[in-house]
Amino acid sequence: MANCLIAQSGGPTTVINATVAGIVKANQLNPIYDTVYGGLNGIEGILEERFYDLTNMSDRENQILCQTPSSALGSCRYKLKRDDDKDYQRLVDIMEKYDIEILFYIGGNDSMDTVDALSAWAKKNGISKRFVGCPKTVDNDLMVTDHCPGFASAAKFVNAVVVSTWLDLNVYAPETRPEVFILETMGRDAGWLAGSSVVSGKVDILVLPEVDFDKDLFLAQVKKVMDEKGKCYVVVSEGAHYADGSYLAAAKASNDGFGHAVLGGAGNALKNMILEAGVAPRAKVQDLSTAQRCANYIQSKVDVEESFKLGQSAHMRSMNPEYTGQVVGVVRKPGKEYDVEYIAGPANEFANHVKNIPAEWILPNYAGLTQEGHDYIQPLIMGEPDLIMENGVPAYVVPYYMQVK
Amino acid sequence: MANCLIAQSGGPTTVINATVAGIVKANQLNPIYDTVYGGLNGIEGILEERFYDLTNMSDRENQILCQTPSSALGSCRYKLKRDDDKDYQRLVDIMEKYDIEILFYIGGNDSMDTVDALSAWAKKNGISKRFVGCPKTVDNDLMVTDHCPGFASAAKFVNAVVVSTWLDLNVYAPETRPEVFILETMGRDAGWLAGSSVVSGKVDILVLPEVDFDKDLFLAQVKKVMDEKGKCYVVVSEGAHYADGSYLAAAKASNDGFGHAVLGGAGNALKNMILEAGVAPRAKVQDLSTAQRCANYIQSKVDVEESFKLGQSAHMRSMNPEYTGQVVGVVRKPGKEYDVEYIAGPANEFANHVKNIPAEWILPNYAGLTQEGHDYIQPLIMGEPDLIMENGVPAYVVPYYMQVK
Repeated sequence: MANCLIAQSGGPTTVINATVAGIVKANQLNPIYDTVYGGLNGIEGILEERFYDLTNMSDRENQILCQTPSSALGSCRYKLKRDDDKDYQRLVDIMEKYDIEILFYIGGNDSMDTVDALSAWAKKNGISKRFVGCPKTVDNDLMVTDHCPGFASAAKFVNAVVVSTWLDLNVYAPETRPEVFILETMGRDAGWLAGSSVVSGKVDILVLPEVDFDKDLFLAQVKKVMDEKGKCYVVVSEGAHYADGSYLAAAKASNDGFGHAVLGGAGNALKNMILEAGVAPRAKVQDLSTAQRCANYIQSKVDVEESFKLGQSAHMRSMNPEYTGQVVGVVRKPGKEYDVEYIAGPANEFANHVKNIPAEWILPNYAGLTQEGHDYIQPLIMGEPDLIMENGVPAYVVPYYMQVK
Repeated sequence: MANCLIAQSGGPTTVINATVAGIVKANQLNPIYDTVYGGLNGIEGILEERFYDLTNMSDRENQILCQTPSSALGSCRYKLKRDDDKDYQRLVDIMEKYDIEILFYIGGNDSMDTVDALSAWAKKNGISKRFVGCPKTVDNDLMVTDHCPGFASAAKFVNAVVVSTWLDLNVYAPETRPEVFILETMGRDAGWLAGSSVVSGKVDILVLPEVDFDKDLFLAQVKKVMDEKGKCYVVVSEGAHYADGSYLAAAKASNDGFGHAVLGGAGNALKNMILEAGVAPRAKVQDLSTAQRCANYIQSKVDVEESFKLGQSAHMRSMNPEYTGQVVGVVRKPGKEYDVEYIAGPANEFANHVKNIPAEWILPNYAGLTQEGHDYIQPLIMGEPDLIMENGVPAYVVPYYMQVK
């Protein structure tokens, strides 16, 4: 029997390790591979033959792995150049050396493209190695799959923050303290995370990268809300931009006195506009930054379970020797109750396009999303796994890249 | 039988409503007051006779109240001027009108001072109204009490964020991506929240307001960590300052182009220093901002339960007619296992001083806290309440100030 290899790439999420856990568990239930190798720090580490043996992971470790945020196998910024024979050959040689038949590659858009390129190259050169992709990205911007593992947990955190900070915003009477609160989320090209906040029911103004920013319209809407309520809750995606493509965030707020440009961020740009226009006397910005993609203290159960099952599905499908250049994903079943079907399809259909929020879901005047948008997001953030706690915080697996030198 | 009144003041916390819930529940168990009034938006609302009847709150609402962050009764910035006969008399007249015998005032330093002033004034003028304080503040800076309700939950959130973002920071190999991560917490005068992060075991550099900031020493320490690990995790309190008292945050990073000073915050000030000195090529800042004082999705069970019991204790002690000008608190019992005794003492002993982290707990060279510091913090962040969830986020009570117009 041959072996298999798992690697992670790109920016981490809260549930990226649940997919690793799913592959490992599937192989324990049906050991079609002798050894399940974890490749450390992505392609970079694999090219250096840095591996961790995941085969016999205990059930408890498997469970803790599912609640460990960030990539336990490590990540890298190294990109295999398309059709770079040297790198491709070197990877295949290493797979051969370790008798690795298949690589499960967990990542976002770029990684799914790599899966496509590697499998095409292998086929072309008559090499029997196989390459399969498992999606993950808080950005939720992959095609084909209904949504991406990692998005739902980040969205759940965003909503929890919105509700709690909305309560905080309102604690002083609006007459005595009129104020705008601005929450900035990740999402450079697609506004899914910012958009997810609408299900909280607390968002007055939603600024997405899907719609070219119109300053006058934005300020008019904030003013309207302030006139009505004396408080205004704004959510903005980091990628919000003007019609000419320039980011709000790039409207350089500042210079730090040492010549470094200090990007104020989209939230600060909106704050400055609001104060300058006199639409509100006070505005506060909260940038969720890194915390939102690793908030394992409020994972979505739906997200964790689907990520795990996608790993299982990828493993189980690999019994078919024709299975390469494929990516697994979920498709929502029709009907009132949320349920998904697990699918697999050609990697090139998942990658290389950014899936935006559909234009028809976006309400005019920064007013949020339609009911269809709400219905898409709400079921994804439901449920909470029973976390194993240690010293007052969620227990985590010490990253494998730290356990091997 | 007479009635009682509860009000909240100052900046909210995650568990400030648990104290309200405790008072209300105590009165249901032993109805020594006919009506338990909630005064809306603190003293300001009371002077406008804006009340909410809390007496018959259901058990379920009581439970949800305990997990509702921010002040459900609302807060105000209005301060009773010490010995302002007019305001004091007006307050007493309203209490008389509603047959309110005692005011339970939940708040921080200023509010405990108000309790002291009001009770002294009442005594001096032969007025039988009574005033009792219940502490709350994420800043943990009140005297007498071992710690303040609200602090522990914020500290638990801080630690959860530290662990998860530390995992995120380390995901790329240090050789390929040397980087400093800077987490900024609340704490203008006392560094308790920043200090609490040490129990995560992940903090390399801790910058507190308790120690005058020394830029050269700080940079030398960051360099040392970077040379050793290639990554460095810094936690800084917003109140960090130089020997002359000027805040790091005030080292104005910037101007927004409209003439507004944009405060970069202490975290951004450190980031700029690090980049300017070339100690690391990359530094990222996460400012926990408002989220940290209302993160009800990761409350500390110890915190919630103590806050509730402090409310109960305040109520139960009020059967003693001499009980006025007092504040309730907790004192840690000696012994290995964490346990507290519930106490009450004169309000003026709790207020008007800032309790800092003891100097002897602070390690030199920004290296964190001693074992004594760890032992103080660790038990406070233990345990998690079973949250009631709604639509994927913790259920909350619609603020009472929104239910009454």
